[in-house]
Amino acid sequence: MAQLRIALAQVNPTVGDLDGNADLIVEWTRRAADAGAHLVAFPEMMLAGYPVEDLALRASFVEACRRALDRLARRLADEGLGDLPVVTGYLDRRPVGLVRSGQPAGAPLDAAAWLHGGEVLVRSAKHHLPNYGVFDEYRIFVRGDRLPVVRVNGVDVATVICEDLWQDGGPVSVTSASRAGLLLSINASPYERNKDDVRLDLCAERAREAGCALAYVNMVGGQDELVFDGDSLIVGPDGTALARAPQFVEHLLVADLALPAADPSAEPGRVPVDALDGTTITIDRHVLTPDPPPAYPVLPQTFAEPMDDLAEIYAALVLGTRDYVRKNGFRSVVLGLSGGIDSALVATIASDAIGPENVHAILLPSRYSSEGSVVDAEDLAKRQGVNARVVPIAGMVEAFERQLDLHGLAAENLQARIRANVWMALSNEHGHLVLTGGNKSELATGYSTLYGDSAGGFAPIKDVFKLTVWDLARWRNTQAGVDLPFLHPFLHEPIPEAIITKEPSAELRPDQRDRDSLPEYTELDPVLADYVERDMGREALVAAGHDAGLVDRVIRLVDMAEYKRRQYPPGPKITPKNFGRDRRLPITNAWREK
Amino acid sequence: MAQLRIALAQVNPTVGDLDGNADLIVEWTRRAADAGAHLVAFPEMMLAGYPVEDLALRASFVEACRRALDRLARRLADEGLGDLPVVTGYLDRRPVGLVRSGQPAGAPLDAAAWLHGGEVLVRSAKHHLPNYGVFDEYRIFVRGDRLPVVRVNGVDVATVICEDLWQDGGPVSVTSASRAGLLLSINASPYERNKDDVRLDLCAERAREAGCALAYVNMVGGQDELVFDGDSLIVGPDGTALARAPQFVEHLLVADLALPAADPSAEPGRVPVDALDGTTITIDRHVLTPDPPPAYPVLPQTFAEPMDDLAEIYAALVLGTRDYVRKNGFRSVVLGLSGGIDSALVATIASDAIGPENVHAILLPSRYSSEGSVVDAEDLAKRQGVNARVVPIAGMVEAFERQLDLHGLAAENLQARIRANVWMALSNEHGHLVLTGGNKSELATGYSTLYGDSAGGFAPIKDVFKLTVWDLARWRNTQAGVDLPFLHPFLHEPIPEAIITKEPSAELRPDQRDRDSLPEYTELDPVLADYVERDMGREALVAAGHDAGLVDRVIRLVDMAEYKRRQYPPGPKITPKNFGRDRRLPITNAWREK
Repeated sequence: MAQLRIALAQVNPTVGDLDGNADLIVEWTRRAADAGAHLVAFPEMMLAGYPVEDLALRASFVEACRRALDRLARRLADEGLGDLPVVTGYLDRRPVGLVRSGQPAGAPLDAAAWLHGGEVLVRSAKHHLPNYGVFDEYRIFVRGDRLPVVRVNGVDVATVICEDLWQDGGPVSVTSASRAGLLLSINASPYERNKDDVRLDLCAERAREAGCALAYVNMVGGQDELVFDGDSLIVGPDGTALARAPQFVEHLLVADLALPAADPSAEPGRVPVDALDGTTITIDRHVLTPDPPPAYPVLPQTFAEPMDDLAEIYAALVLGTRDYVRKNGFRSVVLGLSGGIDSALVATIASDAIGPENVHAILLPSRYSSEGSVVDAEDLAKRQGVNARVVPIAGMVEAFERQLDLHGLAAENLQARIRANVWMALSNEHGHLVLTGGNKSELATGYSTLYGDSAGGFAPIKDVFKLTVWDLARWRNTQAGVDLPFLHPFLHEPIPEAIITKEPSAELRPDQRDRDSLPEYTELDPVLADYVERDMGREALVAAGHDAGLVDRVIRLVDMAEYKRRQYPPGPKITPKNFGRDRRLPITNAWREK
Repeated sequence: MAQLRIALAQVNPTVGDLDGNADLIVEWTRRAADAGAHLVAFPEMMLAGYPVEDLALRASFVEACRRALDRLARRLADEGLGDLPVVTGYLDRRPVGLVRSGQPAGAPLDAAAWLHGGEVLVRSAKHHLPNYGVFDEYRIFVRGDRLPVVRVNGVDVATVICEDLWQDGGPVSVTSASRAGLLLSINASPYERNKDDVRLDLCAERAREAGCALAYVNMVGGQDELVFDGDSLIVGPDGTALARAPQFVEHLLVADLALPAADPSAEPGRVPVDALDGTTITIDRHVLTPDPPPAYPVLPQTFAEPMDDLAEIYAALVLGTRDYVRKNGFRSVVLGLSGGIDSALVATIASDAIGPENVHAILLPSRYSSEGSVVDAEDLAKRQGVNARVVPIAGMVEAFERQLDLHGLAAENLQARIRANVWMALSNEHGHLVLTGGNKSELATGYSTLYGDSAGGFAPIKDVFKLTVWDLARWRNTQAGVDLPFLHPFLHEPIPEAIITKEPSAELRPDQRDRDSLPEYTELDPVLADYVERDMGREALVAAGHDAGLVDRVIRLVDMAEYKRRQYPPGPKITPKNFGRDRRLPITNAWREK
């Protein structure tokens, strides 16, 4: 056996920020060196950021990323870090500019590199490309066909990339044939509710299949609609979990592993192997340090427990919001605070994400706003210490009504749009990002005003059903005084109880209640989950026990709301199926479930 | 040789409208029978509509489409059309419910069927799946591996689907091996500027490769952002064009072809053949009518000339707008008419698309509107006979300004958003679809107000650069009195000359001009075309002869405007690269060309 101290750098890059991401790699490589690591690994696409989408098809970006990788290798050596092998994801392309019809322009690769001694030692690329849900990688990448196996401290380390673990055959199968002592997987695997255990089980299964320990490093941070939760982990050859990083924070997971020493007869060079998925993969062997180091004392091991469901969701929303604000160059947000539960939760998420001093809440009472709403909103603002301002809209509504004779929905929508005009004006005047408060139940059923309450730059609870909105508000109130990296240290409950218990209303006409237009949320949300997230049709929904009349009503609402959903701003994604990128329906929706 | 009268039904289905599309197939099959055709062919995905996007992943929709095909076959026979072979596109799935990781859910197929005698005779599916530009078919389809060869009138007819023609190897190669006498290609090929000649050249090349005549039937009509132009055509085995349908209208292209009689020794059954693209395709032979009919006199041949560039673009915009209105269940539109060229062209397109009596133009003068603008807008409304209404916005602006202290851009945007509130209110009150007037130059550079002038349900000139907006306006004025299916019969010039010649201005502050914020359009548009449509980076743009300072300025504008573009409504697409579906960049744009 040989000892290897591996460091998994669970860090937060930004799509497109090549310089900033390179700085992160240097900084965390130094931390790994300081911790005495023999090898440090960074997430998939670390240098370019992920998801890059069609930026991968722009030749000038690919070239910039390739040059940045070479510069990074030299810089690591210049800064005295050249002896520590670094594995990192980056964006590359096939070396030959072969143009094939139907192949992504420039043949981009979701690549990994080993950096050592100021140079790029070996390059490889993801073999299995995911092409479902939020992933469209057949569109932007071509597949890799090489498995690097690099000897470090006398241990053969094979590297694969993310989806390579999720599909049968390919690099994992070839790892087994290579008799590597460690399989290192670099990832950008987005958070989904309950996904953590799926990942651990998968790593255990693939470790047994590869016949060696497996180290899994994941990205952390919000990037556009995705939130990466980290949760990097290491399992032994039998699938036992050995080390685990905390979720939703940057972290260097350092572990001392006892691994089988490499067979010295396996010499540097390339050997093609049947990958058992209809393709051939070439093992590309390199030797950095042929022999194990002298025995040394091992470090105590980090093993973070996964979070509870509500804590996990809340952390994802805070991190998604914080990074969206930061990565888009904003420092403050503005939002309409109605006194209802949705805007209350969004304000609280914003306070937790960027500090209440950077949150600007606008109270926009109309002739239909209850006194309770204004009082509750003011109470919340005071509890959290956010900036609050009252802008009554009655005079603006009257100015429109002097010119236009509006009734029913048109009159209701007008008020919502006037409110949006106010927060957009304050956004333009002061440079705040607008947060919008719509939840997934509203969004799915179209219960919102286009260019009104749905307007804004980011929608923190876009992927949260109404019942979960209430759960999260109650959960957040239980955390007053708790010290967690994604919570502002409020000493008292940040959300007034009255906001949580009141009946939901848009307050756009006298005595309006959500249940005038929608089923009760206790009935609505379970049908929405099955229809939207599980793509179940009418027959399947009824067979699953939902009331047929309710199913018909919900389907009609959802199918009619498609266009409005397309106009919605991005928001952190926490379920397998949302709207927009991972549920792309035609605009003209002549087919309806029936 | 054998005679075959083929009918290509260039028709306009609607995505999801299974009943309506089946009605179209029955109606046009009857027309083909009345014309004495021996075979009638409909476009790709005719029964489901195209593009179906992720609707293909919903099992209940796929099943509904499969059932609709069986019903259609029986109905054709019930209505006395069972003897005429019908080839049509539809949505199917792999027969075995094999679940493979990374494979689209339900294994959907972009399928073709031969219908005859009340039954489905043979089914096949598209082999080459396009996965670039507007196409993401690896996401929603699995590939077919069968080439049907059906003997009709003693001629062996092979059928392939759209992209099968565009890529090397596969079904065309197997057609050659099958010694078919006719290759029938069914298509849903969207319009792009100058694409028609590319298609004709491709058909000629593939006919020579297959060693037989080639009949190409294409869809026509607007569907969401795509416009299908028809242009169905037939070429001989040497590539000579024999027949061609007009563009942008439904049409039955009937042609009498003299084709080689089939080898009688080629018997019904299945034979696997190397497809020369790394796959095997099975030839599936059927015999309907083994022998040629007695000789009969041939019909005179249709040969439509392709349109001029401007006529073609204008027709695409009118058809795209008309079908978007109709397929989404609207009958009328509302739009803001400023007196500028963009809203003037949009109003004219709307008049041509749905008739001026269904167009509601709102004039929304502010304190900064010039008198000329109002006069010109009123002149246009009178020339075209659209419904016009003046709604001054000064009082509304003042009501906001009493509450908010706004400057610069914030004050300008407020006016644009108030105008949008007015047309959205009239849309909600009266059920009109809102048309928005932004052009591609504005959209690319972000020179518009989010939730203001960019708000609406459809953007007819979204994919038209400003210089082309002027060209189209001038061209349309030359067509007064001309009788074309996509023009309203205005007897005089529909657009006042003053609107075409005035200097462009948003009129949101005193003496504002577009050139205060943007380069002159004669400089801007060529750089935009290279940067946006050809994905050229900074170096390549400068090497192509653009001024470096101008390039830097345009790149900065375009890279910063990404988020606003995502919020833009759909519009007819007329170039290879637009925004949104076919140019999907990450939301966080930390990387900029430099």
